[in-house]
Amino acid sequence: MSMANLKLEDQPVSKKRLRLWLQMLKTTRFIENELREELRLGFQSTLPRFDVMAMLDRTREGLRMSQLSQQLMVSNGNVTGIIDRLVQEGFVMRVSVKGDKRATLVRLTPNGIEKFAEMAAEHETWINKHLSEISAEEVDHFSEVLSKIREEDH
Amino acid sequence: MSMANLKLEDQPVSKKRLRLWLQMLKTTRFIENELREELRLGFQSTLPRFDVMAMLDRTREGLRMSQLSQQLMVSNGNVTGIIDRLVQEGFVMRVSVKGDKRATLVRLTPNGIEKFAEMAAEHETWINKHLSEISAEEVDHFSEVLSKIREEDH
Repeated sequence: MSMANLKLEDQPVSKKRLRLWLQMLKTTRFIENELREELRLGFQSTLPRFDVMAMLDRTREGLRMSQLSQQLMVSNGNVTGIIDRLVQEGFVMRVSVKGDKRATLVRLTPNGIEKFAEMAAEHETWINKHLSEISAEEVDHFSEVLSKIREEDH
Repeated sequence: MSMANLKLEDQPVSKKRLRLWLQMLKTTRFIENELREELRLGFQSTLPRFDVMAMLDRTREGLRMSQLSQQLMVSNGNVTGIIDRLVQEGFVMRVSVKGDKRATLVRLTPNGIEKFAEMAAEHETWINKHLSEISAEEVDHFSEVLSKIREEDH
């Protein structure tokens, strides 16, 4: 065993967890960058655009702009730009809400649903490739641990 | 075993990895939000400010503004605002580079080094708390897997 390994194993667990946290950040950023590039090359698309379509795909009856931007945690202005583009391309439509003249929902068109299905299938393939180092058994274990982290009561 | 569990275990590994990826994103965002709040309450500080100080702490001789914003992956404008504030508060100073009149480095002052050490110690405590679900043995294993993900050759 090398000195470097010895040192690493002698670290207190708090130092190890700090190191793991920095690695978690680095790894999610790494994968996000890869996805960004894959979406660009494969679909001339972007991550925020993919996220908007994913959200609309989960709520097929449509969402208000304010709900979209809230859940995406981005500014209304940015979401407006993305939606305008998607409407122009025929993937999203604006529909009015019965009984509320001022309210509008945005919703995927049939073309949008089809396009997103295509993108989502590719996205799953990319993720499967990026996380191929994690075995099927490990995935379940990791998932469980990550859930517990978010459920903590501070 | 419940039906829900059965279904989950029958999923192809690509679906499981996709679910894990969404959990990784959620968890890093969750922890980042907790840290944001802890930095605000404990030090009236912010995450980008902490990141700037951490970077300057790693390179005590100082960095150019362009190096700082490159490594932080944020715009020069944002870094300038953060640095201006830190200079006002006496945690950072601007120093000129010998032989290059136009170049300036930014560097932590002794006060800044001390303040960052205090913040870094608290930060380690917070991370240790947030990741307490991950045992010392698991930390090493997780770290290894995450490194492999970033080393992949596509």
